[in-house]
Amino acid sequence: AGLLGDLGEDPAVYAGPYLNPLIGKGKSFTRSLRGRLSQILREENPELRDNEELKAKALIPVEDVKMHLPVDVGDYTDFYSSRDHATNVGKMFRDPDNALLPNWLYIPVGYHGRASSIILSGEAIKRPVGQVRPDPEKPPVLAPSRLLDFELEMAFITYPGKPLGERIAVDEAEDYIFGLCLFNDWSARDIQKWEYVPLGPFLGKNFASAVSPWIVTLDALDPFRLDGPEQDPEPLDYLKYSGKRRFDVELEVYIQPDGGSPSKVSHSNFRHMYWNMSQQLAHHTINGCNIRGGDMMASGTISGPEQSAFGSMLELSWAGSRTIKLNDGSERKFLLDGDTVTMKGYAQKDGLKIGFGEVSNKILPADPF
Amino acid sequence: AGLLGDLGEDPAVYAGPYLNPLIGKGKSFTRSLRGRLSQILREENPELRDNEELKAKALIPVEDVKMHLPVDVGDYTDFYSSRDHATNVGKMFRDPDNALLPNWLYIPVGYHGRASSIILSGEAIKRPVGQVRPDPEKPPVLAPSRLLDFELEMAFITYPGKPLGERIAVDEAEDYIFGLCLFNDWSARDIQKWEYVPLGPFLGKNFASAVSPWIVTLDALDPFRLDGPEQDPEPLDYLKYSGKRRFDVELEVYIQPDGGSPSKVSHSNFRHMYWNMSQQLAHHTINGCNIRGGDMMASGTISGPEQSAFGSMLELSWAGSRTIKLNDGSERKFLLDGDTVTMKGYAQKDGLKIGFGEVSNKILPADPF
Repeated sequence: AGLLGDLGEDPAVYAGPYLNPLIGKGKSFTRSLRGRLSQILREENPELRDNEELKAKALIPVEDVKMHLPVDVGDYTDFYSSRDHATNVGKMFRDPDNALLPNWLYIPVGYHGRASSIILSGEAIKRPVGQVRPDPEKPPVLAPSRLLDFELEMAFITYPGKPLGERIAVDEAEDYIFGLCLFNDWSARDIQKWEYVPLGPFLGKNFASAVSPWIVTLDALDPFRLDGPEQDPEPLDYLKYSGKRRFDVELEVYIQPDGGSPSKVSHSNFRHMYWNMSQQLAHHTINGCNIRGGDMMASGTISGPEQSAFGSMLELSWAGSRTIKLNDGSERKFLLDGDTVTMKGYAQKDGLKIGFGEVSNKILPADPF
Repeated sequence: AGLLGDLGEDPAVYAGPYLNPLIGKGKSFTRSLRGRLSQILREENPELRDNEELKAKALIPVEDVKMHLPVDVGDYTDFYSSRDHATNVGKMFRDPDNALLPNWLYIPVGYHGRASSIILSGEAIKRPVGQVRPDPEKPPVLAPSRLLDFELEMAFITYPGKPLGERIAVDEAEDYIFGLCLFNDWSARDIQKWEYVPLGPFLGKNFASAVSPWIVTLDALDPFRLDGPEQDPEPLDYLKYSGKRRFDVELEVYIQPDGGSPSKVSHSNFRHMYWNMSQQLAHHTINGCNIRGGDMMASGTISGPEQSAFGSMLELSWAGSRTIKLNDGSERKFLLDGDTVTMKGYAQKDGLKIGFGEVSNKILPADPF
């Protein structure tokens, strides 16, 4: 209808199943588009409001909309950037007095994940089968994972890309971050435990990672910026940033047993990140690794200092040593078949609320094997 | 020209910059196509031979051809399946008497790599910069990698795909393997050493991985199948295979200093694999992880038992404790700026030779940082 002006010149940017062509246009384009869309949708603006015919075409009731995976994910990287989470894992499995590994306070540690198995909120997942070794004196066995877990994370989506051999400086990194979604990094702890030395998690992760269906732009999150945290030891120069690079986003996790009601098991916040997204992206490209529009980079489990803010069952049940009580009186150490795990996120301040929607997936029993 | 009959019905299969649409058609299609092309190109077949006009259109002198990356890689997985390589690494960095980790003889260990930085033979690479910690008593520093290395590998390309939640059985796995290319898994050992605990290699690898430009189909390699090796302990049932699943492919590595001539530094063979490709793919999908056409799965460094068959400078120089002499009298422990590393591969038997071409890349100095 011409309402987008120049921004609407290339229809291919809006067509197709994924947002990649749109986000590939980069920051100045998407920022202008966001501004114009916001303008068009304002109550006081008659352009769309008073055009009944156009309104009927342009506005679709949310209950008639089926959401899809927002981007075709080129590569997916998972970081490990919550200090409380890394400390909890270190306390449980290594040395309580030296919980953090020596590199953790210098490097925004990350690893490559599987892009093909990133799924959308609403899709059910099957309990994965894999090699586990419950008795260290006996050979491993093939079995359905008994320690199925969620990981409460957020993921950012990159744009427009950076060629191989170039670097993204920490203070320009936000020009390469389009926005964020909720991310459940489903994990099978027993499969992971047996497989992950020395090359990292593999089948304990790649059976599914789930995302919320829309991307909240960094622009929309601007009012929710936070300072800090203090980083000691001082990061190397390429990781030193200026400005407010953390974001205040409330995060909640619910478990709903089959036929039951949801119980909140965790309330965390995206502010509980030691390394921010700009540092992660600067680190990811310091060696010249290229970035494409539509890459997904997840935060790692976002745990806060209190037990109620732990972002995984592994931490909530302290490796299965205590139970979590649900509304219906049932108890959990890890997740059961039929459980639906729902993560919600929102930023709220001075009457302004930005919602991330939710990522919600139900666990089906393992296939026979 | 109609010579492909039904196989030529959909031109979109052959158009476009990548082979993904073609390999997405699966085994019976690509096998028929290979058979038909072979028929058309035979000396005794007049169909093309005697059609000068068509021949001028269909055949292009190899020197006029610019090769491109053969597939758009969806996901890239790197295995670690040569026993000699894993043993060498274990001897150098862990316990010489218990070089293999407990899981290695049960699991075809693998991890996710970066798809975006897979490059073609011929492209130069820049020496990566990254965090290293040369003095364990001092903080890490940012520096160009001093321990830049190649890894001699082969990679297989998957087709046509398997949906999330399904498994590929070991004895049907070859229906999902289109073919193979040479693969140089470039590695920065010092960056990797500092970063890789506990989540695996990341920036030590993702600055570049290089492939040879064409894919040799599994069908073409059929005459070069081999039994074995014996696997003890016995693998779990889902990894037990029948038939000849290893392949006899000679592999050579050359280092050519700037302005000098190439020196052969390694002569290995794809037969030096403990876990075969069928076992790797069965393992990769046992948890329901999905596979797409065009995924790349690399073998891990292919080292043989003798020193001359070691597939990396790390092993050839035994972690820098001995030097490799080149033709020009210069010596190497790891790679220098200006060095070109070339890997070649071929299968040869009874007068039949199948060439893999080469993967060859020159090292440029690190960018200032």
